[in-house]
This record gives sequence, structure tokens and C-alpha cells, in this order.
Amino acid sequence: MPKRNAFYAQSGGVTAVINASACGVIETARRHRSRIGTVYAGRNGILGALDEDLVDTGRESAGAIAALRHTPGGAFGSARYKLKGLEQNRAEYERLIQVFRAHDIGYFFYNGGGDSADTCLKVSQLGASLGYPLVAIHVPKTVDNDLPVTDTCPGFGSVAKYVAVSTLEAALDVRSMSRTSTKVFILEVMGRHAGWIAAAAGLAGSKAGDPPHIILFPEIPFDKAAFLARVAGSVRKYDYCVIVVSEGARYADGRFLADAGTVDAFGHKQLGGVATVIAAMVRDELKLKYHYAIADYLQRSARHIASRVDVDQAYAVGKAAVELALKGENAVMPTIVRRSDKPYRWSIGKASLADVANREKMMPRSYITRDGFGITAAARRYLAPLIQGEAYPPYRAGLPAYGALKLLPVKKKLRPR
Amino acid sequence: MPKRNAFYAQSGGVTAVINASACGVIETARRHRSRIGTVYAGRNGILGALDEDLVDTGRESAGAIAALRHTPGGAFGSARYKLKGLEQNRAEYERLIQVFRAHDIGYFFYNGGGDSADTCLKVSQLGASLGYPLVAIHVPKTVDNDLPVTDTCPGFGSVAKYVAVSTLEAALDVRSMSRTSTKVFILEVMGRHAGWIAAAAGLAGSKAGDPPHIILFPEIPFDKAAFLARVAGSVRKYDYCVIVVSEGARYADGRFLADAGTVDAFGHKQLGGVATVIAAMVRDELKLKYHYAIADYLQRSARHIASRVDVDQAYAVGKAAVELALKGENAVMPTIVRRSDKPYRWSIGKASLADVANREKMMPRSYITRDGFGITAAARRYLAPLIQGEAYPPYRAGLPAYGALKLLPVKKKLRPR
Repeated sequence: MPKRNAFYAQSGGVTAVINASACGVIETARRHRSRIGTVYAGRNGILGALDEDLVDTGRESAGAIAALRHTPGGAFGSARYKLKGLEQNRAEYERLIQVFRAHDIGYFFYNGGGDSADTCLKVSQLGASLGYPLVAIHVPKTVDNDLPVTDTCPGFGSVAKYVAVSTLEAALDVRSMSRTSTKVFILEVMGRHAGWIAAAAGLAGSKAGDPPHIILFPEIPFDKAAFLARVAGSVRKYDYCVIVVSEGARYADGRFLADAGTVDAFGHKQLGGVATVIAAMVRDELKLKYHYAIADYLQRSARHIASRVDVDQAYAVGKAAVELALKGENAVMPTIVRRSDKPYRWSIGKASLADVANREKMMPRSYITRDGFGITAAARRYLAPLIQGEAYPPYRAGLPAYGALKLLPVKKKLRPR
Repeated sequence: MPKRNAFYAQSGGVTAVINASACGVIETARRHRSRIGTVYAGRNGILGALDEDLVDTGRESAGAIAALRHTPGGAFGSARYKLKGLEQNRAEYERLIQVFRAHDIGYFFYNGGGDSADTCLKVSQLGASLGYPLVAIHVPKTVDNDLPVTDTCPGFGSVAKYVAVSTLEAALDVRSMSRTSTKVFILEVMGRHAGWIAAAAGLAGSKAGDPPHIILFPEIPFDKAAFLARVAGSVRKYDYCVIVVSEGARYADGRFLADAGTVDAFGHKQLGGVATVIAAMVRDELKLKYHYAIADYLQRSARHIASRVDVDQAYAVGKAAVELALKGENAVMPTIVRRSDKPYRWSIGKASLADVANREKMMPRSYITRDGFGITAAARRYLAPLIQGEAYPPYRAGLPAYGALKLLPVKKKLRPR
């Protein structure tokens, strides 16, 4: 294949390490200048391609690209935008081809979760269907850890570490105060469909009685009576209770706990995460003093406490994506393959996008204790390696010295769509 | 003075570094064994003295005491318990003397905020009023940074660092997503009476347009119209808006924003911090997609991202408290004295407890910009040094290796009160 340019874009919710994957893609492409010209990054994900809004990463210094490895967020902007099927929206695909042709783009690297794997698969088929030769490789990323085939998803390990560390620290705080003040602490974490992130909080404790005393998973239908009995029991036994609740916790009928259905004086639906719903139960039924925290974006952007394993894997899948493309692969995704739990050993494998797109990996029931409130030894074996190691960013004046790119635009050659 | 034992207790809300002060007290006392016998720690603060519930720190290894320096929470338990005046509650003071006499306690080290400085002052007067010779030294601690005389309070610098780092990170996340998703991010931080903690978030940005775009201080009456105009302006200009709001933000009439007064279907008062109130305004008036985080205890227990300056100062005031006691001082508190801003230089001074007790240090108006939504250069000059340096705890298996004491009880000699 003659030398051609590459397109790279970030898709969906960003993570603490998605830029480490960008770093892996760009640095590796730069080591193969005879075959890959410039890496053009899409501004705001695939929209950058549709709008011909491209960033010339070739004009970023080696130092600026290296700094991506320790910088959270999405350096080029991301987007929640799913391409429809080729039949439903042929115009969008033709526009993509138009932009790729105008900039001689022969490699498509798409960094995202399940939806973007599907988009990447569709783009990989453009060569055949629209007569434009293109290699499309998906770079896995999602804090939700729900991509199939791969052992884990870059982004997850760092959220897992953040949640485990935060649970450990807040628990020490509450335990000190319980005699005269807060008895119950609730931490709300992400995970609308699967309890992977909530499960990671379980790593904060290792023996009976250690916090968190209760984890509420989306996988386990919420049983209010059993939950309250457990809270009361924990307070009776330990004088305090630490609860970690997934935003996706729900009742047996599928309703989210967070959807409390309350309205204010004006009839507006009241906001409030699941943490406030749980807190209200603790207050109303048990009359215990509580506090709650909602980690929200803090958990997925916390590069300052990223897992070294996660950072290394995020970089590795970016690097592998370029290497797979250069080997002539198409419509694949590099995966993390677990070689052993202890010591943790992993390598890079590959999956066909047809096996990845539109499939969610749920947490096995065997990872949740029988009572539904904790994690099992099997879950620990799986999760523990993923939070290993620290990968501190450099600091300047007390704050992480996160990188900032110049983001110079590529001159447009086409009329706006 | 002949050799006598010491009493140490933690009071009020704990911090990421209060144990570093405990470490300073205990290690320094151990270096003066000819004058200080054993340091007995009160379990759950002053209640430990009243209940004769004492921990023998002499039975903790040097390593376990050293580990206090990197362990958050209150290792001996803390309490929210304010002693009344001697006239109103003579029995409690007599009980204290009884316990101190039973265990030959001649030194009283009390680690807390404004209320505990007041308690410490009262205890310091017991020598004269109840005929029991006792030296009482207050060790400053409070995330609220509201103690007078001292330049800053141990505990504050680490919360400040956590809040500045978290704001910086979440802002990078939101900025990447704003094109197709979240436009407004709200972070709720502590500070019921003063905006010191909220102000620290301002360190995340350094030039015009940098997040946070809006800080809501308790000191500035909340003006809904001006606030919403500012949010809209930020979104127009930068496509996103990062807001940091103090839990103490209030209307001109003094009502807290958090006290929204809404009730659910059963007439129960609805929970929800100020972040949810702000989020509802953004949704209802501006129709913008928002996310919010509530840091709660995570911010004050986040030893993993503590400020080195703060850890050093927390240790130094503990050490100084013992040295002051040995010099024959009574009813004083070691203070942090700022020698210069840049480079930051500090030393230890002392304040009379009569000048500290029951006085709150408010944030100067000159630290808040004229429009009320940001911090000034003067605030930056004051705040920036306090978050300098990292003081990472050791890690084991991906988690901070926080210390755990044996907490062996001292044999009781008295009947229960």
C-alpha cells in the first residue's frame, strides 16, 4: 500500500486514559512515516470527519504528544453520535468518503466503546460498498468495562482505582466520626447497565466487617427491607455503614431507584441521583445520620490517581491498532488478553469487530455474593490486577501539568455539508 | 515539673492530615521520655477522657506511629462534643480532673477547630479553678480554614488541592464532551460559613476563560439572574461552563440555596445538596444538559492527593505543641506564620487561646472578584502555596497502605460516670 494519511477520533464518554491511547496511535504512526503520512484527528469525534474539521497532529511537538499519556479528558473532543446503517443514511457515509478522499486518508482509527465499534465496523466495509479503500481499526475505551472479547477495557482500571481509593478514604473518615456524628455514608458511582465500577469499591475491604459494608448493583433487584436490615446490622455491629451504590441500581420491575418520580412545587421533576434516594430511606426508616457523595465525572477524569496497568494498556491498544493496520488487518480491535492473575500478566490480542459490535459484556453473577451486597473471591481475582500501580502525572505549582495541544486545523478542501 | 503523662484527642470533623498532627505529638513526646511518660489518646475525642476510654499509644510501634503521617481520618476517633462552661457543667470538668488524676495526666493536647480551642482554653484554666495542675495546648485543625491568628489551618491545604485538581480534571472531561453532550458541570464543595474551599477551585484556572467559570461563595448573596446570565455567557463563548458551588451558598435573605423546601409525595422534606438546586435552575431556565458531583467526605479524606505543605504543617503543629508544653506554655496554640509568598516560606508561631477561641476568620472580600464569581490575584497569592507539593502514601496492591493501630485500651481505674 502506498503511503497514506490516517484519521483518529475519540467517541463517547471520555476517560482518564483515552488520551494515552491517542498517544499510542500517534507515536506509533510517527515511527512508520514511510507508510503513514499525517495523523489527522477529528475534532469532536466522527463529527470532525463529517464536518471536515480536522486537527493536524503533525504540527504537535513530540513532547506535546507524549504529554497526552498523562492528560485526562479527550484532547481532540469527543462526541456522542452514532452513525446509522448504510441503507438508512447513505449520505453520511458518502460524505465521510469525500472527506477521506480529499485528505488521502487510508487509515481509520476509532477510539470508543460498543457503539463506536459498530460505527467502525460499518466504516471498514466502505471499501467494498463504496469503492474506497480504507483500513478501519477500533481502539477500545470505556469506563463501563462492557466490551466483549477483551479481558478489560482501557478506562475502567482507573475508575476502579479511584472508586476503591475513595471508598477506603471516606470509610476511615466516617469510622472516626460515627460515635457522635455520621453513621451512614453513601457513595454513588457510575454504571447504568452493569455493576463493574460498583464492584471495584469492594477492593477497599479485604476481611469481614471491612467497608464497604453494602454494594448495590444494577444486576441485583433492590430489596428495600433486606437493604435496611443490612444497614441497621452494620451500624449495630460496627457503629457505621459504608454503602456504594451504582447509578443503575433498580427495583425488581426494572425501574431505576434514581427515578424517584418526585416533583417540586412547580411540577418540575426533581433531580437527585440514587444516592439521595438511598439517603432518604436511611433517614426516614432508620433515623440515622448520613452523608452522601456523588462522584460523577470526577471518577472518570481522575488521572491523578490512574492505574498504571490501565495507562499502559490504553497506550498499548493505541500502538497495536496502528501495527494491526500496517499488517493489513481491517475491521478488528486490539484486545487485552489475561495471561495470569497473580502475578498479573497480559498481552495484546485481537478481535473481529463483527464479534464486538453491539454486544455488551455483563458482570457474571458469580462475582456477586449470594446475598447480593458484596463481591466474591472470583471478582477480586479479576479486579485486583486492574488497579495495580500508580502513574502519577508531573506537577507544576501543586497541580498536575496536564498537556494542551495547539490543535491547528487542517485547511478545508470541501464545501460544508 | 516531674515526669507526667499526656492526653491527646481529636475533635470535630476529621481531615486528611489530622493524624499527621497526632504523629507529630506522639513522636515528639517519645523524644522527651524524661519529662513525658505515656501519651494516652482519647477514644472519640474528649469523650475518651470523660468515659475513661483511653488508648495506650505507648504500645504502638514506631512504625505504626510513623504511618499516621500518611493515614487519613481520625485514628483514635473524633467527636462533635462541646464542653459547656465551667459554671453550667461543673460535673464534667470534675470528671475530667478525676480521670486525669487517675492516670497522672499533666499535659492536654487537643486537636481541633474553633470549638475545641474554646474547650482547650477552659481545660487550661482547671489548674487554677479546680486545683489540678495541667498544661493545655491546642493543635489547630480544620478544613474550613477559619481559625484566627494562624495563616492557615492544617487540613485546609489538602482539601484545597483536592478541589483544585478535581475541578481541573472534570473541566477537561466536560470540555471534550460539550459539542454533543454535557454543557454545564457543577461541583459542590464544603464550606458552610466561608468560601475558602470554593475559592481554592479557582486555582484550577489561571487565565481568562479557564474553568472554573463560576464560583458561588457563601459570602456573596446569590443572584439568580446574574448567575444564569453568566452560565449562558460561558456556554456561548466556550461551549461549556464549570461551576463550583459552596454548600453554604445563600440568598440575600440568608436562606441557604440547599434548603429548597421541597417535599415528596409523603410530605418528607426532599434531600439534595445545593448542586441539585443549581442544576435544576440550569435545566429549567437554560435547557442545558448538566452533570453534577458532590464531593462531600471524599474531599476531606483524600490523603492520596494531600498537599505536602499541609502534611508538613500538620506534623509541625503537633511537634510544636509538645515543645511549647515542655517550655512551660499553657493555653496556647502553635500557628503557621507566613514568611513569604514566593518562594513560600513559613515558620511556627504561637497564639494565646483567648485570642483564638470562638473567633472565626472570614475570607476577605478582596479575595473575591467584583462580580462575585471568581477569585482575585490576592486570593491566588494566598492560596497557591498551600497546595504545593505531593506527599503520596505508600501503596500495596494498588491501594494506599494506610496505617492501622492496635488501639489497646488503658485499664480503667474509675467507676463509669
